[in-house]
Amino acid sequence: MSGADRIDRQLAFIGELDRLKDIARKTRVGGSGRHENSAEHSWHLAAMAGLLAEHAVAGVDVGRATRMVLVHDVVEIDAGDTFAFDEVAQADRADRERRAADRLFGLLPPDQGSELRLLWDEFEEGVTPDARYAVALDRFGGLLQNRLCDGGSWAEHGVTRAQVLDRMAPIRDGAPNLWAIVLRVLDEVGLG
Amino acid sequence: MSGADRIDRQLAFIGELDRLKDIARKTRVGGSGRHENSAEHSWHLAAMAGLLAEHAVAGVDVGRATRMVLVHDVVEIDAGDTFAFDEVAQADRADRERRAADRLFGLLPPDQGSELRLLWDEFEEGVTPDARYAVALDRFGGLLQNRLCDGGSWAEHGVTRAQVLDRMAPIRDGAPNLWAIVLRVLDEVGLG
Repeated sequence: MSGADRIDRQLAFIGELDRLKDIARKTRVGGSGRHENSAEHSWHLAAMAGLLAEHAVAGVDVGRATRMVLVHDVVEIDAGDTFAFDEVAQADRADRERRAADRLFGLLPPDQGSELRLLWDEFEEGVTPDARYAVALDRFGGLLQNRLCDGGSWAEHGVTRAQVLDRMAPIRDGAPNLWAIVLRVLDEVGLG
Repeated sequence: MSGADRIDRQLAFIGELDRLKDIARKTRVGGSGRHENSAEHSWHLAAMAGLLAEHAVAGVDVGRATRMVLVHDVVEIDAGDTFAFDEVAQADRADRERRAADRLFGLLPPDQGSELRLLWDEFEEGVTPDARYAVALDRFGGLLQNRLCDGGSWAEHGVTRAQVLDRMAPIRDGAPNLWAIVLRVLDEVGLG
């Protein structure tokens, strides 16, 4: 692959990323109350990765976890956002997202595409310490967003305390210091 | 500062960051055509920092440049986005943004606030290799956005080729391989 082909592939992928700004999540922005999109959500998590680094378990590579959260939602460009508490939509989420990952990461030069695909797979599996921290941030970001909106998407969709606790469970492993905040927020929004 | 005070300060700052999602830039999103906000713009740059790393000059710390672009616009929460080609608004931009930096980074525990403030100052000064790469990404991001929108904010506001070239000049220093792309895009959008 010539240098010009290589950069054209990088630019094609970067251009495609723009579409993540139009993928709406169920959570809302605190100020305007509109639905949050997956691009700005990913930015918020990447900033949090550094700000909350001292709450990660020992040995986590925060730079790697940051790169993971930056790309964790790009498959939604094709597959859309799947609400965490929608069991029907969750049933084929993994398949839809895998096809999206094939297409999207396939736009890049092969070495970069493979590297990002492995990083995305690692996040999805959520087993390594870096992935556990990244997944914990993703859950914690949703929690803080719903706190800003007085219960937000949980209140709108009748999500129960038990469902939220189940969804937040990865925080206990990935950033255990933050678990007390989870319980405090549930109290604050009336899911105590 | 107790551990609880420390985490409360971190959460206060993270909550405040949410407001960057409601700060509109002059550039537009390719798909929906709405104005881009500064949070999703920052995400796009942070992703680009990794994807275009091979075009940075030797010795750049890409992880640091990524952290720089993640926070480079947070001052806009108080100061608003200042259009690059609005000379009147640019006149007091630095003062407005410095006051915003004092307040916003002051929300954090002092060690973290100082660290991010230094990183933001370094970006603003644009002198170190890491900052030059980060500034080049910021300029290049604007260019790609206007390419997606057939001239976008340049066309809407009657910006000339000379003004764009002046604005893009940091790319020549910070990511010289990308300069040929700048010239190509200007041709494509009719500013050749």
